[in-house]
Amino acid sequence: MDRQIGDTALGEEIRRAIDSKTKPLGALGQVEALAEQVARLQRSVRPRLESCELTIFAADHGIAAAGVSAYPQEVTRQMVLNFLAGGAASNVFARSFDIAVRVVDAGVAGAPLEATRLLSRRIGAGTASFRDGPAMSAAEVVRALAEGRALGAGAPHVAAAFGEMGIGNTASAAMLAHKIAGLPLADLTGRGTGLDDAGLARKREILEAAARRTPERLAPEVALAEYGGFEIAMMAGAILGAAGAGRIVLVDGFIASAAALVAEALEPSARAAFVFAHVSAERGHQALLRWMGAEPLLSLNMRLGEGTGALLAWPIVKAAVAMLNEMASFESAGVSGPA
Amino acid sequence: MDRQIGDTALGEEIRRAIDSKTKPLGALGQVEALAEQVARLQRSVRPRLESCELTIFAADHGIAAAGVSAYPQEVTRQMVLNFLAGGAASNVFARSFDIAVRVVDAGVAGAPLEATRLLSRRIGAGTASFRDGPAMSAAEVVRALAEGRALGAGAPHVAAAFGEMGIGNTASAAMLAHKIAGLPLADLTGRGTGLDDAGLARKREILEAAARRTPERLAPEVALAEYGGFEIAMMAGAILGAAGAGRIVLVDGFIASAAALVAEALEPSARAAFVFAHVSAERGHQALLRWMGAEPLLSLNMRLGEGTGALLAWPIVKAAVAMLNEMASFESAGVSGPA
Repeated sequence: MDRQIGDTALGEEIRRAIDSKTKPLGALGQVEALAEQVARLQRSVRPRLESCELTIFAADHGIAAAGVSAYPQEVTRQMVLNFLAGGAASNVFARSFDIAVRVVDAGVAGAPLEATRLLSRRIGAGTASFRDGPAMSAAEVVRALAEGRALGAGAPHVAAAFGEMGIGNTASAAMLAHKIAGLPLADLTGRGTGLDDAGLARKREILEAAARRTPERLAPEVALAEYGGFEIAMMAGAILGAAGAGRIVLVDGFIASAAALVAEALEPSARAAFVFAHVSAERGHQALLRWMGAEPLLSLNMRLGEGTGALLAWPIVKAAVAMLNEMASFESAGVSGPA
Repeated sequence: MDRQIGDTALGEEIRRAIDSKTKPLGALGQVEALAEQVARLQRSVRPRLESCELTIFAADHGIAAAGVSAYPQEVTRQMVLNFLAGGAASNVFARSFDIAVRVVDAGVAGAPLEATRLLSRRIGAGTASFRDGPAMSAAEVVRALAEGRALGAGAPHVAAAFGEMGIGNTASAAMLAHKIAGLPLADLTGRGTGLDDAGLARKREILEAAARRTPERLAPEVALAEYGGFEIAMMAGAILGAAGAGRIVLVDGFIASAAALVAEALEPSARAAFVFAHVSAERGHQALLRWMGAEPLLSLNMRLGEGTGALLAWPIVKAAVAMLNEMASFESAGVSGPA
C-alpha cells in the first residue's frame, strides 16, 4: 500500500514537472510519454539516460533447411563477420549515434566462429528443425535465458537496444506469437528477407504443419523449446536482465517483439521498461504490436532487424529525457500561461 | 537532354549503390529513400551531410488580438528570450543532437528586442490584423523573402532546419494553405496551442470572414501579403535560399509546411530539397501534407513548432547518409545474395 501511494505521488510529480515546461500542455505528444516512462522506471523526476548499447544475438534455425527464407543459411555467419567488421546497417547507425555494439554468437551453424570481439554464448550449432520436433531442449531454453539475463544486466542509465540475426527467424517469431499470443498464423507469416509469392505460400504450409504438432497455446518456455530460436530465447533473457536492472529496453522489430512477448509472458513487470521503437514492414509485426498494446515510435517501412529500428529510436528517447531535465518551466523562463 | 540523361545515369548509380548494401532489397524503407534524395540533391553517390543548423523565425500577428490563440501575444517575445537562454524544447533537442541554433526576430510586437545573439531582421512590430485588411504590404513580402533567402544560404553539407514562434500563426498558416492549395478552411483550422471548443468555433468564424475578403485562390506572394506572417514569409525565403544552395531542408510542422507550400509555389524546383520531418497533431497539417504529396518521417503526436519535429528527424537523415557512405556491400563483406 505504501509503495502504491508513493508511486501515485511520484507519478503526479513527474506529470507536474512535464506540464510546467514552456510548451502547451501535451504539445510534445509521445516524447512526453517517453520522458514520463523513463522517470517512472528510475523513480526520479531527474532521470539519467546517458548512452545506449546495442547487443546483437545471432543464431541459426534448423527450419531454414525447409526453405522458409530467400537467403541461404550461411548468411547468418557472414553477417556476424560483417557486424564484427563494422559494415552492417546496425554498425553504421550505431556509429552515427555513438552507440556501442556487442555481437553474441548464440548458436550459429557450423564450427564456432573465432573472433576476439565476438561474445561466444553458443547453445548449439543452430536449432533442430521445428517442422518435425522441438527446436531445442528444455535445458537449452534455460541456458539461453540465463546467458541472456547475464548479458542484459547493466547500469540503469545505459539504455539497452537488442538486435538479432538468424536466417529463418521470422518463421520462429511467427510461431512464438501464434502459440503465446494466440494470433492467427495467417496474420503473422510474412516475406521475411524477401520471399516471392510461391516462397511465402510454402512458408505458410510449413508453419501450419508445424503448428499442428503442439497444443493451440503454449507456455512461453515451452513455445521457445518447440519453435526456438537460440537468439530469440537469449534476447528474451537479456530483456529480462535489462528490465530487472532498471534499464530502458529498446524493442526492435518483429523478432525482437516476439522476444519481448516471451519476456513479458515470463515476467509481466518487465513491460514497464519496454520502448517499442518501430513497426516493421514484416507482416505480423503490426498484429503483434496491436496485441501487445504497444505504440511504436517510428514507422519507416523498415524490415531489416539487427536492431536497426531500435537504434533510430534512441535519439528520440535521449531527447525526451533531456527535455525533462533541461527544459525551462514557465516560471523559470518568465513565460505567460494561457490567457 | 544531356543533363536529363546524366540525371538518369546518376539516379541508377545511386540506386545500385543502395541495392548493393548488405541488406535485403528495400529493407531500410524510408531511410533508403532519404539517402537517395540527398545523393541526388548533391549529385553524388558519396553525399556529405555533416551537421544541421536550426533557424527559428519569430514574429507577431495582428490577428492574435481577435482571439485566435489560447496564449497572450507577449508569449512570442518571452519565448524569444527563452530560445536565447537555451531553455525551450527546441534548444534542448538541438543540444541533444549537436545542432546549432539561430534565433531571428522577423517582427516581434513592441520595441525591438535587444540581445547580442539575436539576429534582428524585423519587417515590422507584428503584422496588421488580416481580419479587415492585408497583414502586410507587397514591399514587406519582398523584404521578408529576401532576408530569408540570405539567411537560408549556406553550405550544402549543413542541413537546414527551420522553426517558428508567433502567437496566432496557426491561423495564418491555415489561411495560406486555404488560399494557395485551395483546401477547405474547415480541414485546416485547429486548436493551435490549445483552444477549447468555444475558442475553436470563434477562430473558425474569424478565418471564414477573413477568407471572404479576397478571391478564392491567391498567388503565393499575394496570399502572404493578405494573411501574413513575417516569420512565415521569411521562412519561405529561407527555404528557397537553402534549397538554392543545395542544402537539405528539414520541414517541421503545420506552419513550416505552409512556408514550404509558399516556397514550392514560388519555385517548384525547391521541392527536391524538402524532407518532411513529421506530421503534427495540429488539425490541418495532415491535410496539407497529403495535398503536397509529402510522406513525413515521424508521427509523434507533437504540436509545438519551434522546429522540434525537424530536429527529431535529423538523426534519421544523418543515419541515412551514413548508410550510403559507410555500409558494406555484399561483395566487399563477402555476404551471399538470395539463394
